[in-house]
Amino acid sequence: MAHNNGLARTPQMGWNNWNSLGCDVSQDLLLDTSKVLLESGLRDVGYNYVVLDDCWQGERGADGYINYNKEKFPKGMKYISDELHDMGFKYGMYSSAGEMTCARFEGSLDHEVKDAESYASWGVDYLKYDNCFHMGRFGTPKITFDRYNAMSQAINATGRSMLYSLCNWGEDYVHTFGMSIANSWRISGDIYDHFNRPDDLCSCTDPRDPHCVAPGTHCSIMNIINKVAPYVDRGSPGGWNDLDMLEVGQGGMTDNEYVAHFSMWAALKSPLLIGADLRELTPRTLTILNNPAVIAVSQDPMGRSVARIRQDFNVKKDRYGQGEIQIWTGPLYPNDQLVVFLNAADEEMTITTDLNEIFVHEGPEGSAPHSKHEWDIYDLWADRMDERQAEKILNGDTQVFQKGWFNSTETSYKDALGRRDERLMGVKVAHVGPAQPELSVIVPRHSVKMFRMQDLS
Amino acid sequence: MAHNNGLARTPQMGWNNWNSLGCDVSQDLLLDTSKVLLESGLRDVGYNYVVLDDCWQGERGADGYINYNKEKFPKGMKYISDELHDMGFKYGMYSSAGEMTCARFEGSLDHEVKDAESYASWGVDYLKYDNCFHMGRFGTPKITFDRYNAMSQAINATGRSMLYSLCNWGEDYVHTFGMSIANSWRISGDIYDHFNRPDDLCSCTDPRDPHCVAPGTHCSIMNIINKVAPYVDRGSPGGWNDLDMLEVGQGGMTDNEYVAHFSMWAALKSPLLIGADLRELTPRTLTILNNPAVIAVSQDPMGRSVARIRQDFNVKKDRYGQGEIQIWTGPLYPNDQLVVFLNAADEEMTITTDLNEIFVHEGPEGSAPHSKHEWDIYDLWADRMDERQAEKILNGDTQVFQKGWFNSTETSYKDALGRRDERLMGVKVAHVGPAQPELSVIVPRHSVKMFRMQDLS
Amino acid sequence: MAHNNGLARTPQMGWNNWNSLGCDVSQDLLLDTSKVLLESGLRDVGYNYVVLDDCWQGERGADGYINYNKEKFPKGMKYISDELHDMGFKYGMYSSAGEMTCARFEGSLDHEVKDAESYASWGVDYLKYDNCFHMGRFGTPKITFDRYNAMSQAINATGRSMLYSLCNWGEDYVHTFGMSIANSWRISGDIYDHFNRPDDLCSCTDPRDPHCVAPGTHCSIMNIINKVAPYVDRGSPGGWNDLDMLEVGQGGMTDNEYVAHFSMWAALKSPLLIGADLRELTPRTLTILNNPAVIAVSQDPMGRSVARIRQDFNVKKDRYGQGEIQIWTGPLYPNDQLVVFLNAADEEMTITTDLNEIFVHEGPEGSAPHSKHEWDIYDLWADRMDERQAEKILNGDTQVFQKGWFNSTETSYKDALGRRDERLMGVKVAHVGPAQPELSVIVPRHSVKMFRMQDLS
Amino acid sequence: MAHNNGLARTPQMGWNNWNSLGCDVSQDLLLDTSKVLLESGLRDVGYNYVVLDDCWQGERGADGYINYNKEKFPKGMKYISDELHDMGFKYGMYSSAGEMTCARFEGSLDHEVKDAESYASWGVDYLKYDNCFHMGRFGTPKITFDRYNAMSQAINATGRSMLYSLCNWGEDYVHTFGMSIANSWRISGDIYDHFNRPDDLCSCTDPRDPHCVAPGTHCSIMNIINKVAPYVDRGSPGGWNDLDMLEVGQGGMTDNEYVAHFSMWAALKSPLLIGADLRELTPRTLTILNNPAVIAVSQDPMGRSVARIRQDFNVKKDRYGQGEIQIWTGPLYPNDQLVVFLNAADEEMTITTDLNEIFVHEGPEGSAPHSKHEWDIYDLWADRMDERQAEKILNGDTQVFQKGWFNSTETSYKDALGRRDERLMGVKVAHVGPAQPELSVIVPRHSVKMFRMQDLS
Repeated sequence: MAHNNGLARTPQMGWNNWNSLGCDVSQDLLLDTSKVLLESGLRDVGYNYVVLDDCWQGERGADGYINYNKEKFPKGMKYISDELHDMGFKYGMYSSAGEMTCARFEGSLDHEVKDAESYASWGVDYLKYDNCFHMGRFGTPKITFDRYNAMSQAINATGRSMLYSLCNWGEDYVHTFGMSIANSWRISGDIYDHFNRPDDLCSCTDPRDPHCVAPGTHCSIMNIINKVAPYVDRGSPGGWNDLDMLEVGQGGMTDNEYVAHFSMWAALKSPLLIGADLRELTPRTLTILNNPAVIAVSQDPMGRSVARIRQDFNVKKDRYGQGEIQIWTGPLYPNDQLVVFLNAADEEMTITTDLNEIFVHEGPEGSAPHSKHEWDIYDLWADRMDERQAEKILNGDTQVFQKGWFNSTETSYKDALGRRDERLMGVKVAHVGPAQPELSVIVPRHSVKMFRMQDLS
Repeated sequence: MAHNNGLARTPQMGWNNWNSLGCDVSQDLLLDTSKVLLESGLRDVGYNYVVLDDCWQGERGADGYINYNKEKFPKGMKYISDELHDMGFKYGMYSSAGEMTCARFEGSLDHEVKDAESYASWGVDYLKYDNCFHMGRFGTPKITFDRYNAMSQAINATGRSMLYSLCNWGEDYVHTFGMSIANSWRISGDIYDHFNRPDDLCSCTDPRDPHCVAPGTHCSIMNIINKVAPYVDRGSPGGWNDLDMLEVGQGGMTDNEYVAHFSMWAALKSPLLIGADLRELTPRTLTILNNPAVIAVSQDPMGRSVARIRQDFNVKKDRYGQGEIQIWTGPLYPNDQLVVFLNAADEEMTITTDLNEIFVHEGPEGSAPHSKHEWDIYDLWADRMDERQAEKILNGDTQVFQKGWFNSTETSYKDALGRRDERLMGVKVAHVGPAQPELSVIVPRHSVKMFRMQDLS
Repeated sequence: MAHNNGLARTPQMGWNNWNSLGCDVSQDLLLDTSKVLLESGLRDVGYNYVVLDDCWQGERGADGYINYNKEKFPKGMKYISDELHDMGFKYGMYSSAGEMTCARFEGSLDHEVKDAESYASWGVDYLKYDNCFHMGRFGTPKITFDRYNAMSQAINATGRSMLYSLCNWGEDYVHTFGMSIANSWRISGDIYDHFNRPDDLCSCTDPRDPHCVAPGTHCSIMNIINKVAPYVDRGSPGGWNDLDMLEVGQGGMTDNEYVAHFSMWAALKSPLLIGADLRELTPRTLTILNNPAVIAVSQDPMGRSVARIRQDFNVKKDRYGQGEIQIWTGPLYPNDQLVVFLNAADEEMTITTDLNEIFVHEGPEGSAPHSKHEWDIYDLWADRMDERQAEKILNGDTQVFQKGWFNSTETSYKDALGRRDERLMGVKVAHVGPAQPELSVIVPRHSVKMFRMQDLS
Repeated sequence: MAHNNGLARTPQMGWNNWNSLGCDVSQDLLLDTSKVLLESGLRDVGYNYVVLDDCWQGERGADGYINYNKEKFPKGMKYISDELHDMGFKYGMYSSAGEMTCARFEGSLDHEVKDAESYASWGVDYLKYDNCFHMGRFGTPKITFDRYNAMSQAINATGRSMLYSLCNWGEDYVHTFGMSIANSWRISGDIYDHFNRPDDLCSCTDPRDPHCVAPGTHCSIMNIINKVAPYVDRGSPGGWNDLDMLEVGQGGMTDNEYVAHFSMWAALKSPLLIGADLRELTPRTLTILNNPAVIAVSQDPMGRSVARIRQDFNVKKDRYGQGEIQIWTGPLYPNDQLVVFLNAADEEMTITTDLNEIFVHEGPEGSAPHSKHEWDIYDLWADRMDERQAEKILNGDTQVFQKGWFNSTETSYKDALGRRDERLMGVKVAHVGPAQPELSVIVPRHSVKMFRMQDLS
């Protein structure tokens, strides 16, 4: 019933090479990157999938089985998965539900069974499955479902457990059926490294139009956030809306923008796949990616996305004509509430809400019981790691993070949240309640404020 | 020919647990609620279906038959239906045309025959059939028709008469084919307890777009009213546009707003399923639900919905940017006319129409013969029950309603309308005719005025 | 190849009962109406199809053949067709490609072969084929094509020649395939008797949206004109865009509006089916319907619709928020050009064009050779019959129209146009040419000026 | 894999009769035109396909094979192909994936195999395959794919290599699957000879709506450019977005407009099919068509289209309400960059960009390494041939172009670009770099400036 492989009970985390390196893949890249994940402590806060994207393929053999590129991967795929498994990682690979992959290598359409067998024999734990060159087999949900279900069935038939990640760019209402065959499904065209610039190559700006001409390859952070808003509730344990891989650390955004990007991906329960080249990881980037208080939102055992309760365009616009502010909220384990203030206006804004608005989905116009409770407010970014600490880590000073570092491979986020582990709670900054129901915050331009509310009642 | 099970000759009335109680269902809930319906006189004004929504299921057995949850329903479903039947009610149940129900219990997709057999064996009289987890089988009318027709055929094959209620949220133009296989069909995403607040989770605001991304779960009263406007004429005896279950008495709206909500649902010939928890029914709520003059509009033997003849956005907007006024009209049995003034502006409005506009659908620009007739105007809310009376009823003072109470199980609405039973006529408040064709009314903010016009010619 | 039954080489003309009489049909109605058509001279100017719409049906027999209603048609259908044929008319009937007709009588879906056999045996010459209760069989062009093609094939199999008229309200892009199986295809929801009032029951106002929720039943003249504008070129001899039956004489429009309606239907090469009750035909209505100079535009042997070359919304709006002016033009036999100025503004307008604009489709920006020619301008409404003459005709004074009356059953429009029959030419009112390229006309509110341009070069 | 016939590694070039001559085709026309192509040097700069469009057909024989019209082509098709081959041309023909062609001759739908055999036997090298009269077989990508794939398979089965050019007007998302079965695919309705006038017969103005009612026959240059913008990246060697045949020299546009049209078609990697009647070729037209520096952009071996990086509507509008400016950019072989400034405003504009904007797709907000390089700027129209020279060529003075004429049949564009052949480089007009990153140009009304940037770093 539904997709029931037991995986992705919380959104998957890890690393994928595409955003930074594209086709430039190799055995060394994967092994070197894995070392960084391990030694920087990123694996321990949850990034445990190492995913190889397109361009690993060789020719398809006369026997119908796909070969890997022997120059890029001299010791073969099984060697890589063994190495990764030894380091405590899981191994992900990539193909496309088309005659070719997006980079025009051999696709898996009509080769699903043999390709899944190959992945299983290589020890693969994760498959990202793309949408290029689909031979006209899309345009109705049924035909897309069937095309992607073919691989789902093929994976199941191998007997090996693999996280199955659909990448059909949100076409054909995949958010209505993705959870029946897969663990996540992309909901937009490809992300690009910009906060809000509209680009002709990501033309689908109307949330009512999943049948857009070209889901595209240049979708900004704000574009993707606005696309998922109408169906944030479609993700739940075992299957997630995928907002695409992270651009954090790629260079096109400010630190505030990357913090906003990361926060929203966590709050919206998207998979968190680092997209930067980790061999060039900077201290500042590390301090975004390794914040356990924010990751705990992503890995919350309830698996409930935030929903948007306010969107206001009546703010200062930038040179791209863009500008808006948003408020998002949703429940957190065990009895907490998350509130995110997203300032995408072209200036610093003071944004104010109150308990009635925060709990509008529990009962409108103040009818929700929660709006009568007392709440402490914790800032989840207040404990962000000092950059000098991060620099020490990247210089190999393992003592820094071993002492007190949050290690999700030892203690699950659920357990730590259950006992209110301080490292996941942020810093208390305010209190609201029936007597003082308003919460008013100053949010810098292109940034978020992200608060965990603790129920005192 | 068409759906010809003889049921729903007028829109079905009753109670359904979902809006107030969701998954919190049990044998006791159904029996306790039925007692309230009976003792408050609500059954006698027409609420005769008691419908159990999602979450009643147990596992599906190895024999392919569905089991009920034995903890929630210790004496089983047949016991409940027997009890309900003894009280003069009919028994409704729920499933989904998907692999799972919306609450992720066993769905009926590809199990239609055995599930219908179970319902029949349990004495079920009504099936609400939902749309979650449809495995990609939607997107064209044919595929949705086939998926829902499978259960229609399965029900017919049991030989037991069941009112069949489609809940596919208005997708795939169900209003063009629902009447061929069912007695009602939902035309929107799920209702929520607000008069007009737009919510991202009910994003389909364009009436031309039934293929919206997410029909949603937070559709306001005004949102639903505006969605059905282009095809109000699709409902007729035997098959109805379903605007979703009532929110009256749930707490998120003012009394005026609930009156407007109830009036429009009656005038638009939607099924009238009470959604509130009747064990906590308030006197004020009761006086909305039990107004026989308004229910007589719903249960009118002609079965003709009102149609909208005016929509004006040029009025004061509220903090959600919403504001409009509307006029709706349509014929009533035997020769009357209904006119509803709906004020969704953010202030009290004086709204004026005249006979030419009221009868525009009988002939535009004053060419309709009806616009030359003399008409008395009756206010259908003028006889609303006094709250103290309602309180007495809820306190068990059965004398209150037994004396003079309108009892549709004894006298049909048709018969009573035919002899102009005073309890269904409201109170005469005005007269219009060729000499004085204008009808001008003050309508409070977020409210309706609902008039029955009697033809004197 | 294509629909090649030799019929409808020019748009069909005749009478259909639906617009004025709906279900109120009978043998007497048809025979009485035919007598009016004959004696008023309308048959002779071209109205030669008498079409019986919905509600003639009885039950379907156990043998699968449809029966007619024996009370309404005591002598049967063959008797009617014999009578009509004797009077020089052709006989049309109606059914629906659904389980029921729109008035809920027996439909022909899955009964095409036997129903076509019945029509053939009854001497039927024309079938209007509707779209109600289609059992979900629409939503893609292929499924609609197949549903309507079934009847096309069934008709062909009878060996009897019948004009086949699709009535699927413009759904599923019928204008791209209708000509392959039929002689005409409706392109909108049902017309209603109003010039431009928007009505919720004709909600499809976006010309890019053929998949509208509800093509509807209250489409105004201007609504329909605007819908067909993007594909006027799809009609040609043998197959025509059908703008629905005429409302001329029904009472909801002014004389100017009816003249505009009739002129545009002729210029756009729509079928011309009179919708009024001819037993109550007024002299004024007759003088619109019997103008041979305008009918000659409809029946032009080239069969080329006008195309719109200007649409200007920057004019005075009426109380419905409507207002625009349009210019339409196209070629006429033998070397003439038609220009229509349509004033849908809320006041009299002076509209000016010039030869470059008129011939923009022959070459933009003045590059068309025609814009260098000399042209005489003829007003096609200048010879409209005097109302007193029309009254005499309706009073039975047959001498009026026998002397000099245009009789298309004796002389074809093609022949008469070829020799520039004065009765088809209107009255010369202006001249334009390279020296004086401008054509400027005063057009009353809600009216047209319709000019035939004669090439002098 | 994909469409792998080895053809169209750069966009095809040649001549097609339709835009100027429509159905007026004959043996003489093709041979005479070919002579002009040859003697004017147009063949040598790359125009090597001579394509015969609609109206060559005779009847289909009883054996199922199509005949050509023996009056128009007395010596038959093989004769023509032989003649063309002898002159160094390739021979193209036309049919439609429908029951009829657009001009209502025999179509190839369900005759694909025999028709492809005929083409092969006639020595055909190229097939343009149209979309008229498709019998309802469109509306989903799969059904359109199958209809067009039938001819693709039939061509492959002949064993003869033919460039396969889809003409389905951009319907059913052909840009997502065209490359799997063909060498090019039209992306819009038919072009017409106007720069930017909106016409009702090209109504699909919303780039999100490929399912427009009528792709149309009057699409302006700007309309087509704006349609392709969201998926310029879909063209690549072997398969190209087809913006329709050129209108250059047809008479409806100014010289500046034709230059803009030709430049954009080259930059967007559309096929370049001359549409003018070459027997009346003017010197001015020749100097547009024969500019090797611009053709080198079209035939660039990287095959990368420009992408739009700016669109600004905040400019002066013309009488059609149109006005905008655009900037487009993309990489050129070997390490160059193309920048096109398109001024579609109603007045001369000074347009300014900088290196950060030009390289935004390599890294936004100045993060692209290229924006730190030094670049020389070359104007690709600076070397446009003098009109007097062109006149001499057309008068038969072959010496003019033999001396120094760029001859792509002797030297490929790739080789010449590799050694920076001066004839392909334009004229250096500016320099930009980190110190002076701005590029500011004056662009006349309805014109382009087109620059090749050479990387000096």
